[in-house]
Amino acid sequence: MAGSTIGNIFKLTTWGESHGEGVGVVVDGCPAGLSLCEQDIQKFLDRRRPGQSAFSTQRKETDQVHILSGVFEGKTTGTPISLMVANEDHHSRDYSEIASYYRPGHADYTFDAKYGFRDYRGGGRSSGRETIGRVAAGAIAAKILSELNIHILTYSKAIGPVSIDMTRFDAEEIMKNPLYMPDAVAAAKAESYLERCKAEKDSAGGIVECVITGVPAGIGDPVFEKLNANLAKAIFSIGAVKGFEIGDGFEVAQARGTTNNDAFVRSEKNQSVKATNHAGGILGGMSDGSPIVFRAAFKPTPSIASTQQTVNKNGEPINVNIKGRHDPIIVPRAVVVVESMAAITLLDAMMQNMSARVSYLKDFYEAR
Amino acid sequence: MAGSTIGNIFKLTTWGESHGEGVGVVVDGCPAGLSLCEQDIQKFLDRRRPGQSAFSTQRKETDQVHILSGVFEGKTTGTPISLMVANEDHHSRDYSEIASYYRPGHADYTFDAKYGFRDYRGGGRSSGRETIGRVAAGAIAAKILSELNIHILTYSKAIGPVSIDMTRFDAEEIMKNPLYMPDAVAAAKAESYLERCKAEKDSAGGIVECVITGVPAGIGDPVFEKLNANLAKAIFSIGAVKGFEIGDGFEVAQARGTTNNDAFVRSEKNQSVKATNHAGGILGGMSDGSPIVFRAAFKPTPSIASTQQTVNKNGEPINVNIKGRHDPIIVPRAVVVVESMAAITLLDAMMQNMSARVSYLKDFYEAR
Amino acid sequence: MAGSTIGNIFKLTTWGESHGEGVGVVVDGCPAGLSLCEQDIQKFLDRRRPGQSAFSTQRKETDQVHILSGVFEGKTTGTPISLMVANEDHHSRDYSEIASYYRPGHADYTFDAKYGFRDYRGGGRSSGRETIGRVAAGAIAAKILSELNIHILTYSKAIGPVSIDMTRFDAEEIMKNPLYMPDAVAAAKAESYLERCKAEKDSAGGIVECVITGVPAGIGDPVFEKLNANLAKAIFSIGAVKGFEIGDGFEVAQARGTTNNDAFVRSEKNQSVKATNHAGGILGGMSDGSPIVFRAAFKPTPSIASTQQTVNKNGEPINVNIKGRHDPIIVPRAVVVVESMAAITLLDAMMQNMSARVSYLKDFYEAR
Amino acid sequence: MAGSTIGNIFKLTTWGESHGEGVGVVVDGCPAGLSLCEQDIQKFLDRRRPGQSAFSTQRKETDQVHILSGVFEGKTTGTPISLMVANEDHHSRDYSEIASYYRPGHADYTFDAKYGFRDYRGGGRSSGRETIGRVAAGAIAAKILSELNIHILTYSKAIGPVSIDMTRFDAEEIMKNPLYMPDAVAAAKAESYLERCKAEKDSAGGIVECVITGVPAGIGDPVFEKLNANLAKAIFSIGAVKGFEIGDGFEVAQARGTTNNDAFVRSEKNQSVKATNHAGGILGGMSDGSPIVFRAAFKPTPSIASTQQTVNKNGEPINVNIKGRHDPIIVPRAVVVVESMAAITLLDAMMQNMSARVSYLKDFYEAR
Repeated sequence: MAGSTIGNIFKLTTWGESHGEGVGVVVDGCPAGLSLCEQDIQKFLDRRRPGQSAFSTQRKETDQVHILSGVFEGKTTGTPISLMVANEDHHSRDYSEIASYYRPGHADYTFDAKYGFRDYRGGGRSSGRETIGRVAAGAIAAKILSELNIHILTYSKAIGPVSIDMTRFDAEEIMKNPLYMPDAVAAAKAESYLERCKAEKDSAGGIVECVITGVPAGIGDPVFEKLNANLAKAIFSIGAVKGFEIGDGFEVAQARGTTNNDAFVRSEKNQSVKATNHAGGILGGMSDGSPIVFRAAFKPTPSIASTQQTVNKNGEPINVNIKGRHDPIIVPRAVVVVESMAAITLLDAMMQNMSARVSYLKDFYEAR
Repeated sequence: MAGSTIGNIFKLTTWGESHGEGVGVVVDGCPAGLSLCEQDIQKFLDRRRPGQSAFSTQRKETDQVHILSGVFEGKTTGTPISLMVANEDHHSRDYSEIASYYRPGHADYTFDAKYGFRDYRGGGRSSGRETIGRVAAGAIAAKILSELNIHILTYSKAIGPVSIDMTRFDAEEIMKNPLYMPDAVAAAKAESYLERCKAEKDSAGGIVECVITGVPAGIGDPVFEKLNANLAKAIFSIGAVKGFEIGDGFEVAQARGTTNNDAFVRSEKNQSVKATNHAGGILGGMSDGSPIVFRAAFKPTPSIASTQQTVNKNGEPINVNIKGRHDPIIVPRAVVVVESMAAITLLDAMMQNMSARVSYLKDFYEAR
Repeated sequence: MAGSTIGNIFKLTTWGESHGEGVGVVVDGCPAGLSLCEQDIQKFLDRRRPGQSAFSTQRKETDQVHILSGVFEGKTTGTPISLMVANEDHHSRDYSEIASYYRPGHADYTFDAKYGFRDYRGGGRSSGRETIGRVAAGAIAAKILSELNIHILTYSKAIGPVSIDMTRFDAEEIMKNPLYMPDAVAAAKAESYLERCKAEKDSAGGIVECVITGVPAGIGDPVFEKLNANLAKAIFSIGAVKGFEIGDGFEVAQARGTTNNDAFVRSEKNQSVKATNHAGGILGGMSDGSPIVFRAAFKPTPSIASTQQTVNKNGEPINVNIKGRHDPIIVPRAVVVVESMAAITLLDAMMQNMSARVSYLKDFYEAR
Repeated sequence: MAGSTIGNIFKLTTWGESHGEGVGVVVDGCPAGLSLCEQDIQKFLDRRRPGQSAFSTQRKETDQVHILSGVFEGKTTGTPISLMVANEDHHSRDYSEIASYYRPGHADYTFDAKYGFRDYRGGGRSSGRETIGRVAAGAIAAKILSELNIHILTYSKAIGPVSIDMTRFDAEEIMKNPLYMPDAVAAAKAESYLERCKAEKDSAGGIVECVITGVPAGIGDPVFEKLNANLAKAIFSIGAVKGFEIGDGFEVAQARGTTNNDAFVRSEKNQSVKATNHAGGILGGMSDGSPIVFRAAFKPTPSIASTQQTVNKNGEPINVNIKGRHDPIIVPRAVVVVESMAAITLLDAMMQNMSARVSYLKDFYEAR
């Protein structure tokens, strides 16, 4: 089953395990003529790089990206862009022990069930390092979107029980704290909470929120390729995600139609816009011109230092203490992964949208 | 943008609008040799048929399915199965008025934005009738799954603020009340709640839960084609869904690793199984042998009789009262749609899984 | 294995067997705003309809197409267009005998090998009637292409040993003779040849040629999705095709670079054009602005009245005389099928081409 | 337009230009448990390596492949296999001149037309080096097929006007001459012919033939995913291919049904087999148990030392003499590329075939 490719026109294929030669991505279908250098991608990768705070793994990786193809004289050529990051700091010895048993909350057991064996070093293909390819591709997608005046803001909305206070929301703050929270007070509280988790050999979950502005109305499709459906898939394809919601999300279950419906009004620029945004920017699978707003729930890091019960490969019950360097929380480093998957999904939908009307085809080909 | 097809090996393509000749689906890739008659499909369709209770639209449709191809002498032949349900009760006159304005909470505006105009009769392609094709295909997928000893139980978990009480959970009850709730007491309360909504010209949302048992471990893929990611997409492709979660879902955001991790233990049959199921039956994108458990949040029906503010096609503010026959709640009729999308997604993953190992290929082709 | 869908953005799914309820196609991804009525499609279907000459099967079918969805007020809406043609003249009795044995040159044996059994009536899914869906979709694609000033001319280039004489080539003649040859003299000779074949209880093969004019340069992709590769697949997916070539085709094997290369020159309109067209209009997988020219070789109709040797389902050798109504040649009726597959393939490539450059995306979205 | 990926379950994505960092491929969907080392792949790559004879470019590349992911402890893991070959011998200076004009017979013009500019060094993405990724993936596919007792024999059938004599056919000879011809006498003649072409600053075309034995009946699909249609696409996606035919190919156009039909007979092992193989091993899109036999026509190398007429980027007519190191013929090095594309296509079809019957699903999942 070939499951390492996503996208239709803007298509990426990731490869690589935690402790192989490296990890990478091939981005196929990127439009030609985009100015692109390694630094454009590195900026995104640095946001998910380990070893940057007390709450991320102390594994030392500089995660320098190399462009292997698809860029010529500083511009994308329209051919596949191959990107690679070498694995520098393997420490395979840390993991040899886990070859023989199934870590709770991890994919060890399911890998064995599907494939008969697994590359157990550092989680192999299920390692968080797999997301490097996504983020590298996301940097490219986000750069194109920004040229179309579309911007994505992503941040930690909650760390364990600590949620941001929307009245203190400050986008500038996001990059200033290691938890990527847009609320300095909440960030401080969350740090204390994480210290406590760590001290207790435990880990925490949280919520990432993403807001996309500038999306024209009509992007996406009415049936299976709804923009929200593809966002749901893209976000749920990130390890550790257990929930996804758009707009008011699960709250709609208790809402009434009179309050949940967003009225259309005339804007100052005489455009039809929604007065509220319970829908989260998508109606009937297509963008409605309002900001697209969604959230993803991440589970606590499954690798914890506490003693856990499990079985070994022979099915015998054992107790284990997982060693190695692990984040007590996945959320902060997942922020840029969420942003990347959103950018990739939206761009792909926008590229497909260009042939939605016969008049678009006529205008395009008559101009050439 | 072609968005009416879903699935890779078990692939369906739906077509049809609310007020055209009919609605239908082509199911391609269905394995040969399955006993199949119209009644197998009709049973599923009858669960979503309108006019069955006070809470579903009074539109009268018998929704009789016709098998147009792909079945010969009572068995599927491996070629595409074309299924059609005629639209009997159009009442196009009810909808002519909405041609000129955008109903809040509906896809009218986004259809116009994407395509330049729309079939406004009864919501056109965005009508709930589009799900007939999904349910017809779902009936086939579910039949195959049942031959593999995989069973799907789907029900309303919450209607507005009324949730089922798990201590009263009774699977037999689901088909006995019009709300498909597995708790008669909650169902009665929910009916009262819906009466109130109706009286107040309002509508309600709710939550559908789905439990799949008997799935062997190892189904799905570790990266983009995670089984949970494809379930998320499939469920989010149903209109009105605003949230999707698996296992503990959004609760994991506040959980700790020590409690969220599921220990592996030795079962009575000497198999490795999970002692708990916070994960909801999927680890690392692949089924783990536990029941797959997920939930979807549905928004309140956007068509309500109360006066609402909106704009017409010229962008002028107007007040509207939506006429026509509308359910005060989508949830009960969506139950079988959720079950269908789950069956389709799982079966497709299981078909792709058959070539996961070289030894599977060798065993298969040596036996032939 | 789901193999009844083709195309990426302009996507079709055909269904139906020779002796089921009917045959049809769902065309998904058709751009909105195209004027479309049944007559637009019927014109194409009538070119492949049986019973029109002495050389096509005497099966009587009016093959009236019905548009079931996707068109509203005379225009395509962007949603799937479902088209159906009922099977009127089944004559299942003619075919009951062939249930028990394998007709030489037919797919009877391979169907049984793959699926375990088959719908043997009239060839089931392998019947020429399957192409009705292709032609119906092709009519739509060709209509869009004609609005982009792209025109496709398809004809019989050879019937058995009788080839057209290019010095007598007359496009107007194509529709005037039942063999769709652009050379009346050759057509007359070919008719005599076919009479002889028929008298001898035999059948003939031939060659279809297709010329597409007006295609802008740059359509198609440089690697796997070469325009010629997709044309090759599309044409080879038509039953009975055994060879496909583009431009000089198999003759290039004996050519030299000095003669095979097409020089670029400046045209009267000061554009860069090729002085010759050995390449057949495609270089490196992308259209080069010259007419696209390709040919397909069709085998003789396998159903012949002569006695043939074969085996029955038990593997026992038997002699058979195939009854039923069969064309002594496939070619004339295949002409419009080839044209349809070409139109579908080209249109899909043109739709995908619209996002080939970042500047195209910017121009498109800034204009909206 | 994303066109660098091919395959459905066994899926490959190639990347790289002639003068970038390197070229490579990601093979996704390879079944787990295959013994695989770099030498397995190198053997295939060495068959297409330049600099091995007087008739291949003198560019010096060792073309050493590196496995970057997907193999652990000598076995494939089921995760993507990333393979890379570095470009060692760039000589970019040789190509700087061609930046300003369009070489006849090359994709320079069409690249500019599509993307607005191009990586002109050595043909960029359209270089023959792109096929390295295909051959690396083909080596893996062929290894799996050989474990299923399926073997592929590929060779040069004709070089310019020199065809092999089937009475002298000797499979052992193929690897003994630099032209990969199974007939030493023809090979000697062809060498003389090529010497003459070279002396005359000219190039030659030819025909590659491929024979696949051991394929079970029933592989492939009856409609768009016919095995022959996918072979046609795969082979036509190789640069310089201008024709493809299966079995008797273009000769069928002049054949009669009585001679073209292959009778079924009972084999010595009491199986139903074809007495002849005009069909080339495929009936109705599915393998019929006979050897699969197809041919591809390759055009002469477009890069020739003779003076040629063309235009520069401003459309001004110029005369050019193409410098650089070029093969006078593509055919010998293309032999392994054809074999690779055949292996990839067939394996993918065989993997998809495993779920063709409900009984296959039941047998598979009951055994687990």
